[in-house]
Amino acid sequence: MKILVLLLAAIFPSAAVIAQVAEAKPTPQLYSEQTVRNMREIQRASGLSSYAYDQTRYLSYNIGPRLSGSSQAAKAVEYVANEMRKLGLDVRLQKCLVPHWVRGEERGELVEFSGMAPGTVQRVVLTALGGSVATPAEGITAEVVVVSSFEELAELGREKIQGKIVLFNFKFDSEMQSSGFGGAAYGQAVQFRFGGAIAAARFGAVASLNRSAGGSQNRLAHTGSMGYVEGVTKIPGAAVSYEDAETIASLATAGKVKIHLTLTPQTLPDVESYNVIGDLKGTERPNEIVIVSGHLDSWDLGQGAIDDASGVAVSMSVAKMLKDLKIKPKRTIRVIAWMNEENGGRGSAAYEKEESANIANHFAAIEADLGASHPLGILFTGKPEIQAFLAPISQALLPQGAWQTQLQAGGVGADTAPLTRAGVPTFAPWFNQQTYFNYHHTAADTFDKIDPRQMRELGGVVAVLAYGLANLEQPLPR
Amino acid sequence: MKILVLLLAAIFPSAAVIAQVAEAKPTPQLYSEQTVRNMREIQRASGLSSYAYDQTRYLSYNIGPRLSGSSQAAKAVEYVANEMRKLGLDVRLQKCLVPHWVRGEERGELVEFSGMAPGTVQRVVLTALGGSVATPAEGITAEVVVVSSFEELAELGREKIQGKIVLFNFKFDSEMQSSGFGGAAYGQAVQFRFGGAIAAARFGAVASLNRSAGGSQNRLAHTGSMGYVEGVTKIPGAAVSYEDAETIASLATAGKVKIHLTLTPQTLPDVESYNVIGDLKGTERPNEIVIVSGHLDSWDLGQGAIDDASGVAVSMSVAKMLKDLKIKPKRTIRVIAWMNEENGGRGSAAYEKEESANIANHFAAIEADLGASHPLGILFTGKPEIQAFLAPISQALLPQGAWQTQLQAGGVGADTAPLTRAGVPTFAPWFNQQTYFNYHHTAADTFDKIDPRQMRELGGVVAVLAYGLANLEQPLPR
Repeated sequence: MKILVLLLAAIFPSAAVIAQVAEAKPTPQLYSEQTVRNMREIQRASGLSSYAYDQTRYLSYNIGPRLSGSSQAAKAVEYVANEMRKLGLDVRLQKCLVPHWVRGEERGELVEFSGMAPGTVQRVVLTALGGSVATPAEGITAEVVVVSSFEELAELGREKIQGKIVLFNFKFDSEMQSSGFGGAAYGQAVQFRFGGAIAAARFGAVASLNRSAGGSQNRLAHTGSMGYVEGVTKIPGAAVSYEDAETIASLATAGKVKIHLTLTPQTLPDVESYNVIGDLKGTERPNEIVIVSGHLDSWDLGQGAIDDASGVAVSMSVAKMLKDLKIKPKRTIRVIAWMNEENGGRGSAAYEKEESANIANHFAAIEADLGASHPLGILFTGKPEIQAFLAPISQALLPQGAWQTQLQAGGVGADTAPLTRAGVPTFAPWFNQQTYFNYHHTAADTFDKIDPRQMRELGGVVAVLAYGLANLEQPLPR
Repeated sequence: MKILVLLLAAIFPSAAVIAQVAEAKPTPQLYSEQTVRNMREIQRASGLSSYAYDQTRYLSYNIGPRLSGSSQAAKAVEYVANEMRKLGLDVRLQKCLVPHWVRGEERGELVEFSGMAPGTVQRVVLTALGGSVATPAEGITAEVVVVSSFEELAELGREKIQGKIVLFNFKFDSEMQSSGFGGAAYGQAVQFRFGGAIAAARFGAVASLNRSAGGSQNRLAHTGSMGYVEGVTKIPGAAVSYEDAETIASLATAGKVKIHLTLTPQTLPDVESYNVIGDLKGTERPNEIVIVSGHLDSWDLGQGAIDDASGVAVSMSVAKMLKDLKIKPKRTIRVIAWMNEENGGRGSAAYEKEESANIANHFAAIEADLGASHPLGILFTGKPEIQAFLAPISQALLPQGAWQTQLQAGGVGADTAPLTRAGVPTFAPWFNQQTYFNYHHTAADTFDKIDPRQMRELGGVVAVLAYGLANLEQPLPR
């Protein structure tokens, strides 16, 4: 049998991992036998729980989009705090001041191109990027210069860019995504969303457009945050849909293309908002904390279902499952619904500040913010030695196929990033990301994108991981 | 070999057709040997032609959406007539008066539902149906009543419907579509788009919404034409996206849902427009006509690429291929770019009227208006005996796999329907329709949805079919 496994391992790298999981015995020094039994029981129970699915539905449908500063974000804080109290958690609201950016009108249309008929309306589907300044109310009309990199922009220089609108036409790599590397495809595209307006303004551009950093091929623009820096003129920034980037780029090869762009967002004064924090006290080491979290705010275009109602809901479901099973963790499990992940990170900054003296007591932190599709296992950031500590957890997740673990050097969550920097081991569910970025930050991030079975699978991963970490018999390497 | 074929035929019905195609010898009484050789040559040449693809691009990008009555529709008439002249066709414009409906603002939002936070904005993505009357400028606010059939509406009756907005929540069957029956899925859903406002108004509704009759699951609403009848109040009609239908239906199970609906379309006076008709004179029977056609008008939300720039372009490409190959048809091949297929059918009605005395000379008519995806073969309406006449055409299309033929009793094209009714055999390319209705009548009907290889395949089917029919040595049964 062992020879067969080794043979398989030689052929299929993944077989080596199967062998590793199959042979990893729960060693008493890592997890007690009772903990191992409980992990199995939690995994089995997760397959029957609709709690996370139902909470995701409520946040998506009954509350809806929850952009920081909105009345809906405030309602979500109130709702989640109340639901956490129903679960018997010790709940507090942690104050933070969040940006209050309000999307206004957003319109684009082509007003000049080769062969255009008088009276033609060729609409450009676009959406303002979060934090963008407005155009004048009557809009801007300017020629579009199409580039696909910052280098190309620099080569054109001020002479060619001054007074123009730059379109960063970097293609989101859908094949990279469908090969399972959605995050990589997003990572290489998002730099133009975040940094485009800064780069274009340095050469005198009057606005910056980016081809959407996402995989929609359904005339939807992907919003998201953008940056400005001191000393560089703030110019408006918007994302155009895949289709409109294709259209503009094609027309631009045949001659001048002019666009009329109107964006009327407003940045209002900061608003007081909150992280919602609910503690399930540990029985043996109550001062040591395992965070399990998602973010409560969302972009305004959709319902914020996969980004990230599902992450909040599944974090709450950990407490619900343990309560229903009457299983108590040894360390404190702290459920957090973070505020303002999308456009400021003020919630995680407030947490970092308040807990700065208490970081050593943060045993581990989990954030679920990469979708709600089929989970493959667990991502982590920290010492490579952590992988061995996860083997018994992987074994409990084997029945649902979510046993793979992977070290990701750069961090696994935006809200847990300050903790990562402070040396706390951080974790995230590892998803099949073959479609996540098709909906991410668009109007189509809606509750129907959540599959009930996959949501239950996610519940299994997060609950087993959180409970397992909370009951580890040894400290994690850090 | 024959036994094997018969065995296969017993197991796989399609094998019977392969056997039939494989054994169909070009019989002199149907097609001359030269015609058969030419069909093969046309099929081979179609694999190298980018003409139809390039024309589709121009119509989609450089002209754009071409709703009847718009300046872009007028530009398209001028452009296509000119391109047909370049091909050496005898071109005329056939006048028709077309509706001039102009989409205005369209906005929906939920203003009341269970658990709603004060100040909540839950947007409803919707689009006015073609021909809809407007709401008052300030919109309508009313409760939504969700039904999934006309029967359910009737059971509720006037007491429950009076003053309300009806949502016909009939699901477009995406699994039916992905199984290859997109047209069937569309057919069963579209009755609520077309007839919803009439039915709802009979019970006193103030507006009618239909769940989009199409497969988008990307927060896009599918527009399309709607009906009104004399004696029933005209109420506004709009399609909501899949996601919004799901949201409203879910919220409605928990309590009252009110929506604020604003639609400001206008119906302006009719506009003079044209079918574009280009004749390639036949060498032996010039008075007998084989029509090859698509429609030039489109809905306004997208670029009208797959519906139906591709159909016009591929029809033009028949003349282009024959010209390049120096192959002359025996009957006249008449290329038609129809006007106003989408919201009135005024172009085909004008043709029917003008040609009423000449119907007997219409040998056959082809319309390509079911997309531009991989063609499987040929659909036809007429006597079942026609199938045998198609066998040599199928044989020429065998190298590209498009050899299947199917009788479709109800007609194969909207613009050729009057000819079908007059007894003219009518034909259409038969497509894989697994995705067509995901984009149909939405903003995402854009040029990028056209695959160059599939467009060449379509060119092969339409050119071989048109040429074959024009050179048939016998009349088709009718």
